[in-house]
Amino acid sequence: MDKVYVVGVGMTKIGRFYDRSGRELFVEALLKAIDDAGGLKPKALVVGNMTSSVLMEQDSLAALLADHSGLRGVPAFKVEAACGSGGAAFYAGYSLVKSGLADVVAVGGLEKLTENLTSVVTKALAQAADAEHELFYGVSFTGLNAMVARLYMNKFNYTREDFAYWALRMHEYASYNPYAQLPRKTTLETILKSPVVADPLHLFDCSPIGDGAAVTILVRGEEKAKEIAKTMGRDVLVEVKGAALATDSVDLGSRNNLLALESTIKASREAYKMAGIKAKDIDYVEVHDAFHITGYLALEDMGFAPKGEAPKLWREGRFGKGDKPEVNFSGGLKARGHPVGATGVYQIVESTMQLRGDFPGYKASDPEIAATQNIGGVGTYTTVTVLKRT
Amino acid sequence: MDKVYVVGVGMTKIGRFYDRSGRELFVEALLKAIDDAGGLKPKALVVGNMTSSVLMEQDSLAALLADHSGLRGVPAFKVEAACGSGGAAFYAGYSLVKSGLADVVAVGGLEKLTENLTSVVTKALAQAADAEHELFYGVSFTGLNAMVARLYMNKFNYTREDFAYWALRMHEYASYNPYAQLPRKTTLETILKSPVVADPLHLFDCSPIGDGAAVTILVRGEEKAKEIAKTMGRDVLVEVKGAALATDSVDLGSRNNLLALESTIKASREAYKMAGIKAKDIDYVEVHDAFHITGYLALEDMGFAPKGEAPKLWREGRFGKGDKPEVNFSGGLKARGHPVGATGVYQIVESTMQLRGDFPGYKASDPEIAATQNIGGVGTYTTVTVLKRT
Repeated sequence: MDKVYVVGVGMTKIGRFYDRSGRELFVEALLKAIDDAGGLKPKALVVGNMTSSVLMEQDSLAALLADHSGLRGVPAFKVEAACGSGGAAFYAGYSLVKSGLADVVAVGGLEKLTENLTSVVTKALAQAADAEHELFYGVSFTGLNAMVARLYMNKFNYTREDFAYWALRMHEYASYNPYAQLPRKTTLETILKSPVVADPLHLFDCSPIGDGAAVTILVRGEEKAKEIAKTMGRDVLVEVKGAALATDSVDLGSRNNLLALESTIKASREAYKMAGIKAKDIDYVEVHDAFHITGYLALEDMGFAPKGEAPKLWREGRFGKGDKPEVNFSGGLKARGHPVGATGVYQIVESTMQLRGDFPGYKASDPEIAATQNIGGVGTYTTVTVLKRT
Repeated sequence: MDKVYVVGVGMTKIGRFYDRSGRELFVEALLKAIDDAGGLKPKALVVGNMTSSVLMEQDSLAALLADHSGLRGVPAFKVEAACGSGGAAFYAGYSLVKSGLADVVAVGGLEKLTENLTSVVTKALAQAADAEHELFYGVSFTGLNAMVARLYMNKFNYTREDFAYWALRMHEYASYNPYAQLPRKTTLETILKSPVVADPLHLFDCSPIGDGAAVTILVRGEEKAKEIAKTMGRDVLVEVKGAALATDSVDLGSRNNLLALESTIKASREAYKMAGIKAKDIDYVEVHDAFHITGYLALEDMGFAPKGEAPKLWREGRFGKGDKPEVNFSGGLKARGHPVGATGVYQIVESTMQLRGDFPGYKASDPEIAATQNIGGVGTYTTVTVLKRT
């Protein structure tokens, strides 16, 4: 009776929408999700978002989005966990359904970054770092990731070229995804010759800045999920088998180990345990590749590659079509885009569609079990969600 | 088995702490709560906060506070629901315990407003309003409440003097509260002659700006709660009998009725139903009197006074010592203080102590059932929590 299912999903295309407000994007995604759930109206709303206070001058965000989506009055709140806000919101929303506080819950993510100077956006995103121990000294968020990438490259003897295959493949996958911000292929030469942002990270090693919103609708109980699937003519259900959230220090200076994301190790093991699976059982994965380095760390720390070997295996062609797991066919944060607090929800929307077989982009090979990994900061937060087709 | 109990509480004094950081205040409150729970270590943390992104330049707030409190690694996220963030965080934390995702959860609230220019703080707080439909036109949050107060006074024929009795009594209660920001009595004359902020609201009709942190620790299961009570030498338990969150539009212009807080009506009725009680069963209440008007509306909309009569009944002496319910013996937001996202948690800490009989200020008359009401915006959010001594 207390099994939880994803019964509806919706998302907007990701882009720089100077002519569309954040609330407009969110309403589009939520109404799509309601349609996809056979018209089922959510009774609560949890919203993942990082920067609305700074970039939209808007608090009270969740009530605002509920009201504008026709859900005035429902329990609603915003969850902030930096770039991991979407995943954390899903965790909180899953809890609302599981506890019985609400039997139909919408979990959405929204980020509206454009309409601001790039310097302002860069500063807002750097607030994922420790204000007193890191930001105060002028480091940017890309700068922090660059330090980790440099350390990893030195430790395991990789070159920029070795790492460049991440972006190459992400752009290829994104070229099939109608929702992607950068739906176009690229070349190794373009990646390598792109301008430096924070050495060793060049422009094409980093995810872009974009706006977007994504929503999932969760229900409690197999019967309800079956009824909706029937209405929608779908012959499969997508069950949430595992949901785990773990944290680490914010400032990198007090981490035990910069070559692994300890929160990802912890959250993935807990989510697998909850789902009764091992890493090797997972068919499809969406990982948080805000930078190539975080993509590679995710593969290692989720248990798909030995430490230090993910870039090598990736360059050799692993994790592509027909492999286990298949990874980031959405195009990842790198090319699908990274509307910060919405990203974790995009991953769940995309994985749900891959399990159902109706993802409108590069298709996974009939997966049965999928996992998503969404981080905040440089692994300050990780949410891992395990979904199963039943 | 799935009953939920408040087993530990902690709070800081509220004030303008130019020499203490937000993280320092939070750690103090959390460690006090752990001590009060017999040393029990929380396995998850939910933090209510409104303005950290703008006034502390800090996102990733919950992981940061977990780490600094010795809880590195636990699931943690921040909840934003404007001034109602603390209550909403409690609702989310209650859900984590109830769902079984964590069996010991700390719910804290933190706000650090000082160290910023007053104009900056005023702007940050105004972000509780609708950025596009209200804030854009230059209205302050006090301005919005002033409009509601004026409408209410005109509709029900009240004068500023009629309303002034709220602050008078709050200051008296706060004079006994060692945690209060303004622990001193005042006079009707002082209230009436205080400078205007936004007509008809004068300085003494408004809650002050202050810093503070409060934490509660929740556990699942009567046995565990009894064990902790025994360790601490307490002969009563405090059970969470009801927890409900409701919302309304953000912008006042699209409300159905400005003379009532519809979210409070909805949340209180749901919380009472969940607890199996009626309004008349409640012995003690903490309401959200950010301004006198919101205090009076709370009393009416929670079912303690007929519409339009709360200020009259209050002036006649109702809701004081020996009455049912007794209201805001902490001194309320008006004089205990209003560290925005922490306020809803302060209310639960204080009510828990009143039920246990160890509140160190003005004491309630041996209450058995208590309720707290925490709003965000001008009633955009309301969380109502019902606690029972067992």
